[in-house]
Amino acid sequence: MADSVAASNPLAPPWLHVPVDANALAAGLWSRTADRAGGELVVGGVTATALAARFGTPLYVVDEEDARARAVEVREAFDRAFAEIGTAAKVYYAGKAFLSVEVARWMSEAGLNIDVCSGGELAVALAAGVDPERVGFHGNNKSLAEIDQAVAAGIGAIIIDSVQEIGRVAAAAERHGVRQSIRLRVNSGVHAHTHAFLATAHEDQKFGIALEHAAEAVALIRSHASLAFRGLHCHIGSQIFGADGFAESAARLLTLHKELLAGGDVPELNLGGGFGIAYTSADDPAPIGELARRIAETVAAGCEELDIPTPVVAFEPGRSIIGTAGLTLYTVGTTKDVPVAFQDDGETAVRRYVSVDGGMSDNARPALYGADYSARIANRVSPTAPALVRVAGKHCESGDIVVDAEYLPADVEPGDLLAVPATGAYCWALSSNYNHIGRPAVVAVRDGEARVIVRGETIDDLLARDAGYTAPASTLSASKERSQA
Amino acid sequence: MADSVAASNPLAPPWLHVPVDANALAAGLWSRTADRAGGELVVGGVTATALAARFGTPLYVVDEEDARARAVEVREAFDRAFAEIGTAAKVYYAGKAFLSVEVARWMSEAGLNIDVCSGGELAVALAAGVDPERVGFHGNNKSLAEIDQAVAAGIGAIIIDSVQEIGRVAAAAERHGVRQSIRLRVNSGVHAHTHAFLATAHEDQKFGIALEHAAEAVALIRSHASLAFRGLHCHIGSQIFGADGFAESAARLLTLHKELLAGGDVPELNLGGGFGIAYTSADDPAPIGELARRIAETVAAGCEELDIPTPVVAFEPGRSIIGTAGLTLYTVGTTKDVPVAFQDDGETAVRRYVSVDGGMSDNARPALYGADYSARIANRVSPTAPALVRVAGKHCESGDIVVDAEYLPADVEPGDLLAVPATGAYCWALSSNYNHIGRPAVVAVRDGEARVIVRGETIDDLLARDAGYTAPASTLSASKERSQA
Repeated sequence: MADSVAASNPLAPPWLHVPVDANALAAGLWSRTADRAGGELVVGGVTATALAARFGTPLYVVDEEDARARAVEVREAFDRAFAEIGTAAKVYYAGKAFLSVEVARWMSEAGLNIDVCSGGELAVALAAGVDPERVGFHGNNKSLAEIDQAVAAGIGAIIIDSVQEIGRVAAAAERHGVRQSIRLRVNSGVHAHTHAFLATAHEDQKFGIALEHAAEAVALIRSHASLAFRGLHCHIGSQIFGADGFAESAARLLTLHKELLAGGDVPELNLGGGFGIAYTSADDPAPIGELARRIAETVAAGCEELDIPTPVVAFEPGRSIIGTAGLTLYTVGTTKDVPVAFQDDGETAVRRYVSVDGGMSDNARPALYGADYSARIANRVSPTAPALVRVAGKHCESGDIVVDAEYLPADVEPGDLLAVPATGAYCWALSSNYNHIGRPAVVAVRDGEARVIVRGETIDDLLARDAGYTAPASTLSASKERSQA
Repeated sequence: MADSVAASNPLAPPWLHVPVDANALAAGLWSRTADRAGGELVVGGVTATALAARFGTPLYVVDEEDARARAVEVREAFDRAFAEIGTAAKVYYAGKAFLSVEVARWMSEAGLNIDVCSGGELAVALAAGVDPERVGFHGNNKSLAEIDQAVAAGIGAIIIDSVQEIGRVAAAAERHGVRQSIRLRVNSGVHAHTHAFLATAHEDQKFGIALEHAAEAVALIRSHASLAFRGLHCHIGSQIFGADGFAESAARLLTLHKELLAGGDVPELNLGGGFGIAYTSADDPAPIGELARRIAETVAAGCEELDIPTPVVAFEPGRSIIGTAGLTLYTVGTTKDVPVAFQDDGETAVRRYVSVDGGMSDNARPALYGADYSARIANRVSPTAPALVRVAGKHCESGDIVVDAEYLPADVEPGDLLAVPATGAYCWALSSNYNHIGRPAVVAVRDGEARVIVRGETIDDLLARDAGYTAPASTLSASKERSQA
């Protein structure tokens, strides 16, 4: 069967090269403790087979050392860059990427603030003992209950997204007898993704207030004694590899920032998040230190040109802290060679489909964004020549793809464990129960120890909300498949 | 504000026309009991405001009368069409579209069989008291536990998807001392969607066995005494409006079907599902009776030409039964007018963003498939001229769109209820907890009564699996927002 798959497959995308060793863990894709030991993938000192045996697959695995260290590194990179231009940086961990009580604690202990965007995320941060003063609350349509919850908790800042929200937050602050700090999200017209950015007058999107209406909104904020205006906020996109989009956005915001200084204090400028990571060896995000320096230089130059004091500059990284810290372990169930025509003349090549025991329910990003991922066999190394594979999930949908294209040792077979790196962000966060499949557990590994930080779902968990369901004994065998530890 | 939005907006997609009455419930989009009464939307005899007051929003609402009636109508349409060509039809409800114990019971009572594709879906069908003999089990990567569970339950048919699965199912059947009925899924090379279909030698996808390898796989199935081969299966796509793709696929399968008759009995042919519904007034799916007749004619002609007996023909509709029976109720939280450039010369028009209290967590289809939906104000009618709106969700993501483009009365405002029709299929099924937002309840309405068939999630539900979380009293206010009845 291996012979039927050519080492260099014309179905491979142009960026995917045949690796010299299809067992190697490519630089930049894996968390810092990930390595091979005795052929096996080891992360946090725990082998892939030990993880699979104890918790089952699919399994989300988070490298605690990596997550904590990246949080510190990112914070220090911004601290350093902005200290050099004579101001301070504030770093908020964007909880939407992945938030659990344990991870909120890690971020807090690393000296980060935390951004939340719902009452649920706020509840997690508070349960982790995060100082409410260090939490920011986002969202284009916060409910009245969420606003009340945030104000009552003594949250550090609410990011106002619409004119209608100003009065709602002011009323809540009055009710609670507090002066609530406020940032104003503006629609800067800059939208960035990976290598390019687009700059228009306004982006056609739901967030923020147009730059030309922002001064009026700030005046309204300042008219409420219960609100304290802290500064402007923007967010220009996601999975961004360079600094140009941030620089353009910063320049636009600083002009407005100066205008607002005429009406009072504006201590901060928040440039949002969106810093990218590598999902495949084709991805080459600039190091966060370099991005921080380039953005700081732009801010310094802008403030000098406008002759204004340099504000504290805030950022909201999520993916760049937790993304690479996570990987997902799957078990291969079936393999299948599909002859595929790749040219108009009808010439065909074989694409090997490798189906695993998870899929779009635990990682929606390939289906949702066409996101590319990588994979490696985790339970062994193989000397077999590489073959092009597509890793598919087990869902009843043809778009259920985990890794669109990867070269793996051609003898990959049912029973093998596959590890997909860089699944720490927006995988668990976006997970579903499609096809009534329970979500995997999240396990933190460190120094040879593994512990569940979010329990996996059993079938009984899934069906507990079904008004017609009472668990019969016959479903228990299926429940056993899922990690319950 | 209404004046700033032109009645005919150049930002509208070409298919979207300004309605004469932006309150009217367009034909084909709404379930059969949906109507206006006293200006309000009423479904199953219950008003939108009564539903929102009792259960909160967002809320999935299923029109029980509509779902039951459509199930019967679809079954009868196939029964009638295939009786006319001298054979029988079998209709399986595709549970992946939406499955709960209650809905499984409705489908069973309407005389339908049920398709499942996981141990979880099987558990639901069994809990509903569905005769296991009337259940089919799909999937490209069934786990060994799922295969065992299905065989042990006495399931009607397992649809084999790979050569590797044949031995697994045979072993399970031997272990349980039964002869397991089997269908074989083939990759027919036909892929259809809406108005067009593509026919190649093989589709580049994970499901099924190539036509030219199917005879060999069937011989292997027949070599196992514990397996009973029932026939071929294919599935050509989703949201299909015409019969041509089915006809092409049927023709291809019948040729193989005839070949297999040489080796034994082949009582059935299963042509899968994928029948489309209208999500907007631009959608015009052919009536199911017409599709059934056209497919039946193709099958009859094919069998006559091949000189073979006409098999029983099976279908697997899901969306076409439950899709239009469902709607989602939201509450408007904020509105915002965004000036958008629509031509290279920089001319702008205003797009009004209307943000609701749900979004991509309760309906992933716009983000996942670029799916279009419609909307209407549900709590009132308004004489105001129509304005182009985009209905956005409350998630922290710019792609979080519920309805990309719709004309609504221009005075749509915070506090209004919005109803989005045709959300019965693949909305709850694909729902997530993105941003730690709980999933809405599913409520069945009928004859003026509403009852919860799947309970909504509270924040405590969401966080119950977080190993670091114990519910503090402070989260209760947020929990109250979600329907818990």
